[in-house]
Amino acid sequence: MGDGEQTLTIALLSGTDEKLNAAALLTAGAAALGRKVDILLQYWALDAFRAGNLTKDHGLAPEAGPDGAAAVRRLQAEGGGQHWSTVLAQAKQLGEVRVHACSLSMDLLGLAKDDLDPLVDDVEGVTAFMLAADGQLVFI
Amino acid sequence: MGDGEQTLTIALLSGTDEKLNAAALLTAGAAALGRKVDILLQYWALDAFRAGNLTKDHGLAPEAGPDGAAAVRRLQAEGGGQHWSTVLAQAKQLGEVRVHACSLSMDLLGLAKDDLDPLVDDVEGVTAFMLAADGQLVFI
Amino acid sequence: MGDGEQTLTIALLSGTDEKLNAAALLTAGAAALGRKVDILLQYWALDAFRAGNLTKDHGLAPEAGPDGAAAVRRLQAEGGGQHWSTVLAQAKQLGEVRVHACSLSMDLLGLAKDDLDPLVDDVEGVTAFMLAADGQLVFI
Repeated sequence: MGDGEQTLTIALLSGTDEKLNAAALLTAGAAALGRKVDILLQYWALDAFRAGNLTKDHGLAPEAGPDGAAAVRRLQAEGGGQHWSTVLAQAKQLGEVRVHACSLSMDLLGLAKDDLDPLVDDVEGVTAFMLAADGQLVFI
Repeated sequence: MGDGEQTLTIALLSGTDEKLNAAALLTAGAAALGRKVDILLQYWALDAFRAGNLTKDHGLAPEAGPDGAAAVRRLQAEGGGQHWSTVLAQAKQLGEVRVHACSLSMDLLGLAKDDLDPLVDDVEGVTAFMLAADGQLVFI
Repeated sequence: MGDGEQTLTIALLSGTDEKLNAAALLTAGAAALGRKVDILLQYWALDAFRAGNLTKDHGLAPEAGPDGAAAVRRLQAEGGGQHWSTVLAQAKQLGEVRVHACSLSMDLLGLAKDDLDPLVDDVEGVTAFMLAADGQLVFI
């Protein structure tokens, strides 16, 4: 299958900064190659996309340990790297990237569309999301 | 590729309730679209499928925090949402959904087939599982 | 698509032993079927591939709990199972398996190529990695 024709579909559940960053980088890489990207925010990833929440400290996976956490903080203090929300915003400007909030997770967290950052395009159910997932499907 | 023809293959290792729920929802969504679903239970996901274990509290990812945990408990107390094991059982009735226990993880946890919930169809090795994985492959 | 023709692409971020093991098993299974495998090491997975680090104790996911940890230790004490780094080394001898270090994660952790175990073939950016990902894409 031609790379430029295959949608990258990401079910994004994890809410830690390194996984949100990894999702943004995969998205940016795919968008740079002219591929459509579809992201469904669930659970703790959706929580990270609440208005005003994007650039807060979302923690890291437990295995990061103190050394990993120190490495991330050192990079941030040096101004190195871009925040994952900036990477994602740029990917949205560059290509056809859609960010959906999972309707079930919206109910769980008691959120309405207005509670979310404008990076989120709409609210969608899992079945509609899966219907559009005809290429690579990644769970993060 | 036509959506109705592509198998969704899930390597399910995580044993927390929100990831088990996400796996069940992806399975139900794919089954509703007429797709085959193949699930391989490994490690802590397999442990959650021991007979009598399905509906126990399996915890949440660490990033859930007290607010996330409270949201999940509140939803359960309200009777909102279905348990992931119910979602999965319905998906198995609706479509062609197979749940395999990873043979290596069975050895690791000292389990025999009779120790598992009837939702598990059989015990399978990783190579046989990969041989059948000719569509989307998701790791949860 | 023919199974022997499809590349398996793994974005490997997790640094716990059971997830590193699961990645090695998927790799070995795919390689045994004659499939190419491409692995990108990010964050805590990259840290696990530092020279001298492979066989250290990398911990387990939090949901393992004391029982899960005890099961893993018991299996190791019995000499049961192969270490994931051995499984991966054998897969590299058996088939076309490439292990890349993510360039951004190299910067984050302050690593140079010489700091890594020889199982790592080269350093690569995410876009180049995504360009070669034309089959199954798995995030672990």
